[in-house]
Amino acid sequence: MTQNKPAEIGMPIQDIDTPALIIDLDSFEHNLNLMSKSVASLGVAHRPHAKTHKSPVIARKQIAVGAVGQCCQKVSEAEILVAGGVDDVLVSNQVVGQQKLERLAGLARHAKIGVCVDNLENIGAINAASSKFGSQIDVLVEIDIGAGRCGVVPGAPAVKLAEAIESMSHLKFSGLQAYQGRAQHIRGFSERKVAIEKASEYVLKTIKLLGGAGIDCPRVTGGGTGTYQFEAGTGVWDEIQAGSYCFMDVDYGLNLTEDGNYFDTFQNSLFVLATVMSIPNKERAVLDAGHKASAIDSGLPKVMDLPDVEFVSASDEHGTLTLGRNAPKLSLGQKIRLIPGHCDPTVNLHDWYVGVRNNIVESIWPVAARGAAF
Amino acid sequence: MTQNKPAEIGMPIQDIDTPALIIDLDSFEHNLNLMSKSVASLGVAHRPHAKTHKSPVIARKQIAVGAVGQCCQKVSEAEILVAGGVDDVLVSNQVVGQQKLERLAGLARHAKIGVCVDNLENIGAINAASSKFGSQIDVLVEIDIGAGRCGVVPGAPAVKLAEAIESMSHLKFSGLQAYQGRAQHIRGFSERKVAIEKASEYVLKTIKLLGGAGIDCPRVTGGGTGTYQFEAGTGVWDEIQAGSYCFMDVDYGLNLTEDGNYFDTFQNSLFVLATVMSIPNKERAVLDAGHKASAIDSGLPKVMDLPDVEFVSASDEHGTLTLGRNAPKLSLGQKIRLIPGHCDPTVNLHDWYVGVRNNIVESIWPVAARGAAF
Repeated sequence: MTQNKPAEIGMPIQDIDTPALIIDLDSFEHNLNLMSKSVASLGVAHRPHAKTHKSPVIARKQIAVGAVGQCCQKVSEAEILVAGGVDDVLVSNQVVGQQKLERLAGLARHAKIGVCVDNLENIGAINAASSKFGSQIDVLVEIDIGAGRCGVVPGAPAVKLAEAIESMSHLKFSGLQAYQGRAQHIRGFSERKVAIEKASEYVLKTIKLLGGAGIDCPRVTGGGTGTYQFEAGTGVWDEIQAGSYCFMDVDYGLNLTEDGNYFDTFQNSLFVLATVMSIPNKERAVLDAGHKASAIDSGLPKVMDLPDVEFVSASDEHGTLTLGRNAPKLSLGQKIRLIPGHCDPTVNLHDWYVGVRNNIVESIWPVAARGAAF
Repeated sequence: MTQNKPAEIGMPIQDIDTPALIIDLDSFEHNLNLMSKSVASLGVAHRPHAKTHKSPVIARKQIAVGAVGQCCQKVSEAEILVAGGVDDVLVSNQVVGQQKLERLAGLARHAKIGVCVDNLENIGAINAASSKFGSQIDVLVEIDIGAGRCGVVPGAPAVKLAEAIESMSHLKFSGLQAYQGRAQHIRGFSERKVAIEKASEYVLKTIKLLGGAGIDCPRVTGGGTGTYQFEAGTGVWDEIQAGSYCFMDVDYGLNLTEDGNYFDTFQNSLFVLATVMSIPNKERAVLDAGHKASAIDSGLPKVMDLPDVEFVSASDEHGTLTLGRNAPKLSLGQKIRLIPGHCDPTVNLHDWYVGVRNNIVESIWPVAARGAAF
């Protein structure tokens, strides 16, 4: 089910078949270098989230500029990262079920592997799997610091899990997973900052209780593109998991910075290239990219470069544009760049990244973990 | 990027790795047989839409019970259908760009191929491509009968395009594409019916004008799962394109029938199987299936079989359930079936269909055109 490549190296951008997922390589590299400097100046480690890019090629580029490894959400993603040359992977998520745990335990013979837990029974199952393979797995306790998804209540319940991990022959307690997912897209700067400061109190309380039980907390990891500076600023987090910064999207672009501007510290480097396939009248044009080319769970894509042209609705294979009074005249077959509403699930719809520099196709990389869901 | 199969033939359903796309084969076959009888009794041909299933295996099953061929939206889907044994494919969409048109023209040497147009310039481009390959392409004029997407205004503009098609050496005017996409999910039965009756007037007007210009309209094709009985009932449509009927989804299940009940004539046969991966407290559980396993463009998935358990939010790889007072106690690792909010884009997230009968895995079919977007 791997589909044909939409481009060839050396092609001008206009010749790329559509819909295609394209990377502006200059902007992408700008983002990688900027984050590398940013985390260095903040004094934290960076473990970018591969759930965004699903690509060992990109993972290795992040590691080349200083990242300590990768995060991912699924065992299948971890397998693809390790196979692609990444030797330190944290599954920043719970892994449940014998099949998955045995795959994780096998993988831990070939790379440094971490996983998160929020359940006592699960700790025993992870240990059983790693015992079977004679491997060692780093286990972090996930605490719920306000996201309201997975994770135990901060404090005593986390200590209980850490003690259980320490008692296991093939597991090592490796710290706390503390990710405030809900805070990433709080628009206001100070509101976003307050959410992380509040979250940091939960983490500190847990570290203190761990200390009281004689357990050292080797690291606190979490944070995303919307908040990583705040986590780093608290001094509580050792490691930052920001991933979307390498691409950005419409949703992150709506966050506000301290001076009240839209968040454009990192540049949009990821686009869906689409073709104008129908121009029914002067007010409407239709693109060949809909739900199957650009995910809309966090809002519609945005049209680049064309004033007064708005992407107003998507169906499975179509995107409808309204053309305002000041819109340029579009032509049938014209290629248009869209900024995805949400980068991660958009990447997961495509098989290939087409890398473009100076309007020429320079690279074609597989979205190797596209569809790696279990 | 084709991912591992989540199951093996003969496995009990409980052993399928998750998230996985599963088909209840009894319900699926029920739907195929019911539609076969329904269109036969209505006196119309059935050309199911492969944009739903993206599978030549399923296409051939539909043809085996009477379908005349398949529709699809993309040239790449048509290529995969023809390669998989389907010899009559209508791309019920505009195809723009030389690369795509040459692929379509080449394919037309190996199967009966149709395509839709709503633009004069495009007709010339299709003819140039089919001339190059010495192939013949059936061309239908798409008219906008209320969907407000692609298509020309019914009446004179359609006649002009039909005349242009007739003047081309390698094209054959093959009728009208008339699909009222907006009507499919109008909830009320009579409102839905009225929308199609209104649409039929546009079609009749166009046929009359074509006749006045000495052009016979060989067929009118369109209609979806929500409205096909109405299109057939008008006597104006010759061919019905309903595709979702084979799987159904939450969105179609909210339509109302003539007697005011929810639309359950066809059974839910498509599910996302998910695992309970976290139970943070008595009110909440988390599944391993989010945006990357079940599309939410038409609403959230629905939990099967479990009373008072509601799927309330999705993130990329997680689905959050609220557990009401009357909910059964869930266990970590428990497998749960979800009805997707919208079947078509959900199928496009998966590489494999796992077919289940009597709780045993009986078939594993590739979603062969998954990601076939250009």
